[in-house]
Amino acid sequence: MKPTEFCIVGLGLLGGSYAMALTKKGHRVTAIDVRGAAIAWALERGIIADGTVDDGAHDGDMARLLGAAGAVVLGLYPADLAPWLRARQGLLRPGALVTDVCGVKRAVVGTVQGFLRPDVEYIPSHPMAGREVSGVENADDRLFAPANFLITPTAQNTPAAVAWAKELAAELGFAHVSVLSCEEHDRMIGYVSQLTHAIAVSLMNANSDPHLVDYTGDSFRDLTRIAKINEELWSQLFFANRDMLTAEIEQFEAALTDLKTKLAAGDEAGLKELFRRSTARRKLFDRPAPGDKTS
Amino acid sequence: MKPTEFCIVGLGLLGGSYAMALTKKGHRVTAIDVRGAAIAWALERGIIADGTVDDGAHDGDMARLLGAAGAVVLGLYPADLAPWLRARQGLLRPGALVTDVCGVKRAVVGTVQGFLRPDVEYIPSHPMAGREVSGVENADDRLFAPANFLITPTAQNTPAAVAWAKELAAELGFAHVSVLSCEEHDRMIGYVSQLTHAIAVSLMNANSDPHLVDYTGDSFRDLTRIAKINEELWSQLFFANRDMLTAEIEQFEAALTDLKTKLAAGDEAGLKELFRRSTARRKLFDRPAPGDKTS
Repeated sequence: MKPTEFCIVGLGLLGGSYAMALTKKGHRVTAIDVRGAAIAWALERGIIADGTVDDGAHDGDMARLLGAAGAVVLGLYPADLAPWLRARQGLLRPGALVTDVCGVKRAVVGTVQGFLRPDVEYIPSHPMAGREVSGVENADDRLFAPANFLITPTAQNTPAAVAWAKELAAELGFAHVSVLSCEEHDRMIGYVSQLTHAIAVSLMNANSDPHLVDYTGDSFRDLTRIAKINEELWSQLFFANRDMLTAEIEQFEAALTDLKTKLAAGDEAGLKELFRRSTARRKLFDRPAPGDKTS
Repeated sequence: MKPTEFCIVGLGLLGGSYAMALTKKGHRVTAIDVRGAAIAWALERGIIADGTVDDGAHDGDMARLLGAAGAVVLGLYPADLAPWLRARQGLLRPGALVTDVCGVKRAVVGTVQGFLRPDVEYIPSHPMAGREVSGVENADDRLFAPANFLITPTAQNTPAAVAWAKELAAELGFAHVSVLSCEEHDRMIGYVSQLTHAIAVSLMNANSDPHLVDYTGDSFRDLTRIAKINEELWSQLFFANRDMLTAEIEQFEAALTDLKTKLAAGDEAGLKELFRRSTARRKLFDRPAPGDKTS
């Protein structure tokens, strides 16, 4: 990727990690955030070259930064993305490429591509990386090395923009890049990400015994790690993908009911078959990684 | 703990890890296993000082090893423990202490204490440590450092035996020791261990899309790590604790249904409340550990 000026809008955990990685790669990176502290923190550490606060008092600075940026990364919450872009798209540089980090796609992409200026292009993407903490202060571009980067173009996107998103993923250091439709994305994410969070939350909420902490093993800690959840972000993600998530919850409920029924019936052969199937499927997901006990 | 001769019966992952730790602590450790390869492996590496195969052809050796052991650790599967001990208890040394590693207690403890010779004592315990692999070849006494050790005495146990089990946990290096009843143990384990395995298995079985591996993030890997499961051991554990596990599954199902209902109703405040509750509860379980991303 040739040197580009990036403007990161929303300098949180992901936006901050993008800024870190892109600055290291020699790009000029600027940022816009509602939190002055986020901008100051990133400027002090050289993670961004310039930045300003989106507080209504710095619109001139915002216009300057967006007008200079060949690429804009929207690190905003799902519900904020389209409204922000609709209000600010007049400030974008002609020919700019816009992408995002949003974990749901159908709810966002059609809307944005429906109103966006014809001389800029929005190529949707979703870096599947995160932590149970937020803010640029916790940013860490090492998050990307083991992770998947998803690109979800529509018929309105150009091959050049898809190619650019792939280059971006490579610059950020993602292990794997996939291109899929917004529909496929939301169905898959309903299973591998949203359902897992719904399960972790429900598992944590199912029992209120305060002594459990004395007894837990690693399996319980692993299953509930993501029960620490950003309520605002995740309620937006869940509601924006309600149909897919509900279908995945119901498919999971059916699998759990199947296990419970075999247990009640004393069906040893049936229970073992479930265990063999889950073992065989899970083995496909193994990968060598530091700290991976199964490697 | 004063130097004792230990005999490990069942030199698998846990039995082998016990042997490793106890040998390092200066105890003489011997072992009995149905697999000659397990005994040979441990002898070659100095993990045990002596050992023999339980194959009907080495009963003299078995009598010698058991007769010399002041402490016997039964590293057997739940269904094998009582039958083995009933058949072999005549070989135990008078005054010997017997313990185990069994993950269910009600199904085993009453039976064993019901038939056991009066001049030996069985003090039940459960080391909450494990891996997704089996066999002495995968033994590793570092498993114990972050883990909990549970002792489940009955009215038939002496305070001296409970004190000995605590010393044993300390020698093995467990982080935390708890004493609880067999009933409390099985209820708790139904939640923190068996329910989590039932969930992981069902999550893995709920969707057969082979492309999912391209898309998964860490949360899915964490939740399904334990879906690789030893079918024989875990079907025994599940059936031996069927009532408690079924109750925990149903409590979890109710929590998940609650979440699904709030999602369907568009109840944003209710969904956020579930997220806040799970976040607050999960924080109690945090501990600093290498590789713990939340620390």
